[in-house]
Amino acid sequence: MTSPSCLTFLTDFGLEDGFVAACHGVAARIAPQARIIDITHLVPPGDVRRGAAVLAQTVPAMPPAVHVAVVDPGVGTTRRAIAVQSAEAIFVGPDNGLLSWAVNALGGTPTAFALTNSELWNKPVSPTFHGRDIFMPVAAHLVTGTALARAGTEIDIADLVTLSAPTARMLEGEAEGEVLSVDRFGNVQLSIPSAAAAELGIAIGSWMTIRYNRREISAPYMLTFGAAAAGELIAFTDSAGLISLAVRSGSAAERLSLPPGARVRIAAEVAS
Amino acid sequence: MTSPSCLTFLTDFGLEDGFVAACHGVAARIAPQARIIDITHLVPPGDVRRGAAVLAQTVPAMPPAVHVAVVDPGVGTTRRAIAVQSAEAIFVGPDNGLLSWAVNALGGTPTAFALTNSELWNKPVSPTFHGRDIFMPVAAHLVTGTALARAGTEIDIADLVTLSAPTARMLEGEAEGEVLSVDRFGNVQLSIPSAAAAELGIAIGSWMTIRYNRREISAPYMLTFGAAAAGELIAFTDSAGLISLAVRSGSAAERLSLPPGARVRIAAEVAS
Amino acid sequence: MTSPSCLTFLTDFGLEDGFVAACHGVAARIAPQARIIDITHLVPPGDVRRGAAVLAQTVPAMPPAVHVAVVDPGVGTTRRAIAVQSAEAIFVGPDNGLLSWAVNALGGTPTAFALTNSELWNKPVSPTFHGRDIFMPVAAHLVTGTALARAGTEIDIADLVTLSAPTARMLEGEAEGEVLSVDRFGNVQLSIPSAAAAELGIAIGSWMTIRYNRREISAPYMLTFGAAAAGELIAFTDSAGLISLAVRSGSAAERLSLPPGARVRIAAEVAS
Repeated sequence: MTSPSCLTFLTDFGLEDGFVAACHGVAARIAPQARIIDITHLVPPGDVRRGAAVLAQTVPAMPPAVHVAVVDPGVGTTRRAIAVQSAEAIFVGPDNGLLSWAVNALGGTPTAFALTNSELWNKPVSPTFHGRDIFMPVAAHLVTGTALARAGTEIDIADLVTLSAPTARMLEGEAEGEVLSVDRFGNVQLSIPSAAAAELGIAIGSWMTIRYNRREISAPYMLTFGAAAAGELIAFTDSAGLISLAVRSGSAAERLSLPPGARVRIAAEVAS
Repeated sequence: MTSPSCLTFLTDFGLEDGFVAACHGVAARIAPQARIIDITHLVPPGDVRRGAAVLAQTVPAMPPAVHVAVVDPGVGTTRRAIAVQSAEAIFVGPDNGLLSWAVNALGGTPTAFALTNSELWNKPVSPTFHGRDIFMPVAAHLVTGTALARAGTEIDIADLVTLSAPTARMLEGEAEGEVLSVDRFGNVQLSIPSAAAAELGIAIGSWMTIRYNRREISAPYMLTFGAAAAGELIAFTDSAGLISLAVRSGSAAERLSLPPGARVRIAAEVAS
Repeated sequence: MTSPSCLTFLTDFGLEDGFVAACHGVAARIAPQARIIDITHLVPPGDVRRGAAVLAQTVPAMPPAVHVAVVDPGVGTTRRAIAVQSAEAIFVGPDNGLLSWAVNALGGTPTAFALTNSELWNKPVSPTFHGRDIFMPVAAHLVTGTALARAGTEIDIADLVTLSAPTARMLEGEAEGEVLSVDRFGNVQLSIPSAAAAELGIAIGSWMTIRYNRREISAPYMLTFGAAAAGELIAFTDSAGLISLAVRSGSAAERLSLPPGARVRIAAEVAS
């Protein structure tokens, strides 16, 4: 791969403190030419699945980069610090599954290393701030062209911690999935890919039945919520290629009381 | 004009998701040298007037730039995607009025184009994420020096959607306006320019009467709220040149119950 | 010193308005090559002590830089605008104590200047927005190599406003301090340095007694909260070298009802 010149950064550090900036500062000292793109720092504290989902959905838009992700409730314990290379991306973070969906999303044949070479770290290492003292300085060295093999010991990719994938399966005449995330607009993203709608014979312009929690509702499957009337509930394929629910000028998550993790089934609506 | 090397970016995408970062990534792939200045991404969802006001008040401080603004409840419908060039700035966004106040603020003789050349887009284009797939990639091409005429078809500037300007008018002995915005400090910005105070004979150090919603209050017109006592209500000319109300170490918006859009009149206080 | 190429920026401006971006724009016009690292813009409005604490704890991670900090309830009054040089850093901001802890943290023999040379300002100067019109443009000139002496008149460092340091003192068998800050995770940072724990004979793995507000609780002193059980209260040395309290997967600040400023004593736990 050509050496990336870009770092991306995702954490649950929040924006009220100086934690994110301290990491930017460490990176700027090691790699003054590198651009840093902040993905988000508002992952709910310790919510590894949410961090993994945002990372996996955002990296496909990125240039070749070293991606640093830190949602790390086990900081300072024996959980490993790792770097995983996949195609034109290197992911750096804790070995707790946070990186696993993004590595899968990019495909290829990834290789993995445990970050054991303390020469690349920021010293002294705080036991509670590996973002500043291990993950970011290692990533900054990598973005300047340091070989990944210098960061530590190669490990078997099969030994990494992975998160269980969001469930999504085809049943007879139905697709079942779960609420993957709710965005700022209250749009409800399901783990059901748009291909499933096609397979179920749900075409753009037709209606689908949505079942969850003993409720059954109907919504038209539209190209975009922009075409809906204010207050109307619709289904659409979102920018990540997943079936999502929206209320024009409102919140589908509130209207339907559908939080992340809730199980949902969709089917083609049968004309009565 | 000399080619700008800077992109600015304003949206209602929020900071919890990866939406803003995905747009940064697309820009970094096309224009790796361009600097991106985020104006804000916390415009309330779909609030085109608020987005227009922040954009218009911020761009005068910017270097020559391509300004991308996306508050776009009509995404994916037939509303046009446009670019408007005015002096040393190019504005890129939906044709829903969002750009209109900023274009007016910069003055000059603007030219406008419909963004119809899909060669400059990010493919495949999501029907719900034109920020990532149309607006930002087109802007990134423009900032690298691509001629605006390559982005699409020239259209008549008079055909663009415009927002009604915030009302502000002189009455007999009074100026009438509306609350344009409330900032983080609770300062209430009126649509009444400081020139109106001068015209009404309200000098720095004198008092003005403020009438709204059947209430009448008084406040001294001061150079800065820093000079007021804690808890004191004052009027001042804010950094955008507009009459504003502040409570030192407090919130004028809360004290007066004045939300955006509320109608307000000011007059010189008559000595009794 | 070698000339820094980096600006850092800390304010209480919030992220909803265009205030931060306007300052970035002004900097980009004067110093287009300079990198800007935002420390935070979510200091509670007017909370100078909180701004000073975040600044002092973050700058040690930064490369040589001009640090701009604006938490400035006295903007537009006679409070001075200052720049303080200390080792490889220059601090720019209001003379209200905001910079004082960071200057102390970096040590050295600082020199100070009043920013009186209006040639370096952005005109016209708004009486309420010195961040945009004085602090940032002066800082941007400094980062391009303008000599600090050109910014104004040298003043005696002893004449600067300083904040009283957070109290921390050794008593007989106890250390007394105050809650310095509460971070996003609910971790409670005390003003007691880890050296005090050592002096009191509190070793990693042993227990300490924490007294505040007529309450007395116990917590193990651990290397990291990552090693604790969910819901367990622990004490640890945080990334700034200060004794802090955490609840794994919870909020110590909520559990203990300990807000910033509360007085706390710690002691080695006596085996009973």
